[in-house]
Amino acid sequence: MSAVTSIERELRAAVAAEVVAPSAQYMVDETEARGVRGRADAVALPRSATEAAEIVSWCYAHDVPVVPRGGGTGYAAGAVPLDGGVVVALERLARVRSFDPLVWRMEVEAGMTTADVRRIAREGGLLFPPDPGAAEQSQIGGNVATNAGGPHAFKYGVTGAWVTGVEAVVAPGEVVRFGGSLRKDVAGYDLTSLLVGSEGTLGVVTSVWLRLTPAPEATWPVVGCYDGVRAGSAAIERVVGNGLTVAALEYLDGETMRYAGAGFPVAVPPGSFCVVAEADGSHDEAARLRADVVDVLREEAIAVHAPERAEDVAALWNWRHGVALRVVAQRGGKASEDIAVPLDRLAEAIEESLAIGSRLGLPAASWGHAGDGNLHTTFLLARDSEDDAELAARASEELFALALRLGGTISGEHGVGAVKTQWLGEQLGAKGSELHAAVKRSLDPKNLLNPGKKVA
Amino acid sequence: MSAVTSIERELRAAVAAEVVAPSAQYMVDETEARGVRGRADAVALPRSATEAAEIVSWCYAHDVPVVPRGGGTGYAAGAVPLDGGVVVALERLARVRSFDPLVWRMEVEAGMTTADVRRIAREGGLLFPPDPGAAEQSQIGGNVATNAGGPHAFKYGVTGAWVTGVEAVVAPGEVVRFGGSLRKDVAGYDLTSLLVGSEGTLGVVTSVWLRLTPAPEATWPVVGCYDGVRAGSAAIERVVGNGLTVAALEYLDGETMRYAGAGFPVAVPPGSFCVVAEADGSHDEAARLRADVVDVLREEAIAVHAPERAEDVAALWNWRHGVALRVVAQRGGKASEDIAVPLDRLAEAIEESLAIGSRLGLPAASWGHAGDGNLHTTFLLARDSEDDAELAARASEELFALALRLGGTISGEHGVGAVKTQWLGEQLGAKGSELHAAVKRSLDPKNLLNPGKKVA
Repeated sequence: MSAVTSIERELRAAVAAEVVAPSAQYMVDETEARGVRGRADAVALPRSATEAAEIVSWCYAHDVPVVPRGGGTGYAAGAVPLDGGVVVALERLARVRSFDPLVWRMEVEAGMTTADVRRIAREGGLLFPPDPGAAEQSQIGGNVATNAGGPHAFKYGVTGAWVTGVEAVVAPGEVVRFGGSLRKDVAGYDLTSLLVGSEGTLGVVTSVWLRLTPAPEATWPVVGCYDGVRAGSAAIERVVGNGLTVAALEYLDGETMRYAGAGFPVAVPPGSFCVVAEADGSHDEAARLRADVVDVLREEAIAVHAPERAEDVAALWNWRHGVALRVVAQRGGKASEDIAVPLDRLAEAIEESLAIGSRLGLPAASWGHAGDGNLHTTFLLARDSEDDAELAARASEELFALALRLGGTISGEHGVGAVKTQWLGEQLGAKGSELHAAVKRSLDPKNLLNPGKKVA
Repeated sequence: MSAVTSIERELRAAVAAEVVAPSAQYMVDETEARGVRGRADAVALPRSATEAAEIVSWCYAHDVPVVPRGGGTGYAAGAVPLDGGVVVALERLARVRSFDPLVWRMEVEAGMTTADVRRIAREGGLLFPPDPGAAEQSQIGGNVATNAGGPHAFKYGVTGAWVTGVEAVVAPGEVVRFGGSLRKDVAGYDLTSLLVGSEGTLGVVTSVWLRLTPAPEATWPVVGCYDGVRAGSAAIERVVGNGLTVAALEYLDGETMRYAGAGFPVAVPPGSFCVVAEADGSHDEAARLRADVVDVLREEAIAVHAPERAEDVAALWNWRHGVALRVVAQRGGKASEDIAVPLDRLAEAIEESLAIGSRLGLPAASWGHAGDGNLHTTFLLARDSEDDAELAARASEELFALALRLGGTISGEHGVGAVKTQWLGEQLGAKGSELHAAVKRSLDPKNLLNPGKKVA
C-alpha cells in the first residue's frame, strides 16, 4: 500500500465522510481480466448526498478528479480511476427513502444493490423489471449511470425507462434534483435522461425515483433449438413478426451451446442454435402467449422445450445465468462486447461477428438479447497470452466497425467507459461529437467528473 | 398583409425552400383564445431536411430567430413567433421514410400528422400508443418536440418512450442524427431524449424513428361514477392499488359533468365525479381485466357502465373527446393548464385547484389523466372580458404554486412554451435553472432557436 497521499490527508481533514486509502478492490471492475487497473489518491465513502456534495466540492475546488463507483461490475472500466483522483464509493448511501407500493413507486439511494431493489418491489407485489447480469453486486446508482439493460429490456425497456427522477451531485459540488415521484413532467429539458447513462461524467447520482409495475402472475420460458444461425434467427423473426409480446427473447449460438451446453435441459445435437422466449402476464395470458410461442418456435425446430413446473423454469434460467462463466472457462480468458444492431440485421451480425474470430484465429461464441438486436459476441483467449490480447483488441475493433456498418451501436448496454472512447466519435460523427462535448463542458467545465470516460 | 420584409426577400433568394409572407395562420396556436399572437418576418416551407438546414443556416448567419412549427395545436405558444424571425413550417416534410411492420418500426418525417402515423401503424397490425388530443392536426415532429402525452400514457408512456432516434437541424445549420432504428443504445449521452420535449429550442426535428407495439385485440372502457372528489379519487387509487394495469385511467369531476354531461351514456345525478378506466390486450386478457376493473370501480359507485359493443365504446370515447369544447362553450372562453402531481396527491390537487376558482369567483372544472396525476383544471371565462383574463392569469399562477407545493410539475404534457417561462425557474430551482441554461447555450450559443421559449 502506498504512502498516504496529500490528497487523502487533506480530503480527510476537509469532509465529514470517511476517507480511506485506495485499496485494490476500488481500482478495478470486470475489465480487470483484460488488464485494466486504475490508480487513485483516495477513496471517499459518503453516507448522505450532503457528504457526497462536500467531497465533490473539495475535489472541484482543488482540481482533483472524481470517479463515482457503484458495485464495480461494469464491463467498460467506467468506475476505474484512470490516473489518480478520488473514488467516490456509494455503498454506504443505500437507504430506501420511500416505498409506496399502492402507487407503484420507490425512492432509493444509489448504493442499494439491484437485487435488493427488485426484492423490495416484489415484497410489495411489484416488479422493477431491469435485470442486468450482476444484480447481487451491482448498485442501482450504477445501473442508472450506465442505463443498464438485461434480458427483460425487450418488453420492459432499459433502466432509464423506470427512472422518473434523479438526485445527483453536480459541479462544482451541489445537490440537484431532476424529476421526482411524478409519472409525467415536461417542464424543462429532460435532464433526468441526460444524467441516466452519463457514466458519472455529468454528475454523481446519489438517489433515484423509480416507477414500478405490478408483478406478473406467471413467467414461462420456451426454448427452441435450430440447425444454425439462419434457422434460429428466422425463429426469432417469427416471434416478433407474429406480434408476440414476449418479455424476453434471447439467443445462444451453436458455439455457445458447444461450450456451455452441459446442464442444458433439452437433448439437442451439439452446436444447435437455441432461442429462449419468455411469456409473462396474468396466469391465463402467460399461458395463451406461451402456447403461441411454442407454435411459432416449433416450425423448423430440432427441439422445443416449454417447462411448466417452477423448479424446471428455475433450472433453465440458472443454466442461462451460468453461460458466460462456462464459456470463459474454456480457455481462461475472454474479450466480450455488447454491440447492438437493428433487429433485421441480427443474423448478419451474428454470422459476421463469428467470422471475425475465424479470420483472426480466435475461438468465438455469440449469445445475447435477440429481441433488442443486442449481441454479446465473445472471443476466447488463452489466459495471460499477450498475442491473444492483441488479437482480441483487433477483434473488438472489427466488431465495432461491423456494428456501425449495420446501422448499430458500439454499446447496447455496457456503456463507453474508458475502453470504447476511440470508437464513440465514429458512431456520433463530427457534429454529434461536437454537441456531445459541448454538453459535457456545460455541466463539467473543468473536466473533473470521471475524466477520460464516455468522451469521443 | 405587411410589405415584404427584407428578411423575407433575402431568405427567398438564398434558399431552395419556398418562402412565403407571414400569413395569420402561422402566427398563432391554441393560445390565440387568450390573446397570444405573434409576428414573423417570413415563413419557410422546407421539403427536406437539407432544405431545413439551409434555412437555419441562413438565419443563424444573419442573427434571425428560427421558430419551428408543426400542426399549431400547442397550448403553450411554443410555435408562436414572439417577435419576428422565420417560422419554419414542417407540413411539407411528411413522408414515411420506412415502415417495417415485422420488426415494429417506422421512420417518418416531422410533418406527418399524429393520426396518420397511428393509421399507418394500425394498417400493419401495430399500435403507436401516444394519443394527444388533436391527433388529426398535430404533427409527429411537434409531438416529439413537446413530448406529448394523452390518456394512454398511463400504460404506454408519453411520446418520448416510443422515439428511438431523432434527425434534427442544429445550430448553426447542420443535419444530425441521434439514435436510429435501434432498440438499445448507450454509446453517447441520451441526446435523443434531450431533443425530445425541447420545444424547438435546441434544434428543428425533421424526422423521427419510432418503435411500435402489436395492437391490442380488444379495448374496453369501464366508467364508474361517484359522489364527489374523495370517493372518485378513492376509486382511482383502488384501480392502481389493486395492480390493475389499465391502458388509460381518466377522471371528470362533478363540474365537468355538469357542463359536459349531455350525451354521457350513463344516467347519473348531475355533478357526479366520473372515472373512465380502459382495459386492453388480447381478447381474453382485456375481458379478464375489464371484469376486475368493474369489481373495483363498483365499490361506493353511484353507477358503473361497461360497454361491450363497438358502437357503444366508440360513443363513449367520442363523448369524452368533446368534453373540453363543451366546457368552453359555457362562457365562451377558458384558461386551462396541465399541472401534474404524484398520484397520491391527486384528490388534494383537484380539490384545491377548484378552490382557486371559488376564491377568485371563476367557475372551474377539472378533468384529466388520473393515473398519471395529470390535471386539466380549467377556469371558465367570459369571452373578451379583461377582468376575467386578469383573474385567469392569477388562477394559473395559483395553480402552478399548488403543483409545486404538492411535489408536482407546472407542465405534465403541454410544455413551457412562452406562457410558463416565469414559473420554470421556480420548479427547477437556482442550480437546476443554471444547468438548464447551460445546456441551452451549449446547443444554441446565439439563442436563435425558438428564443424566449422554455427558458427559466
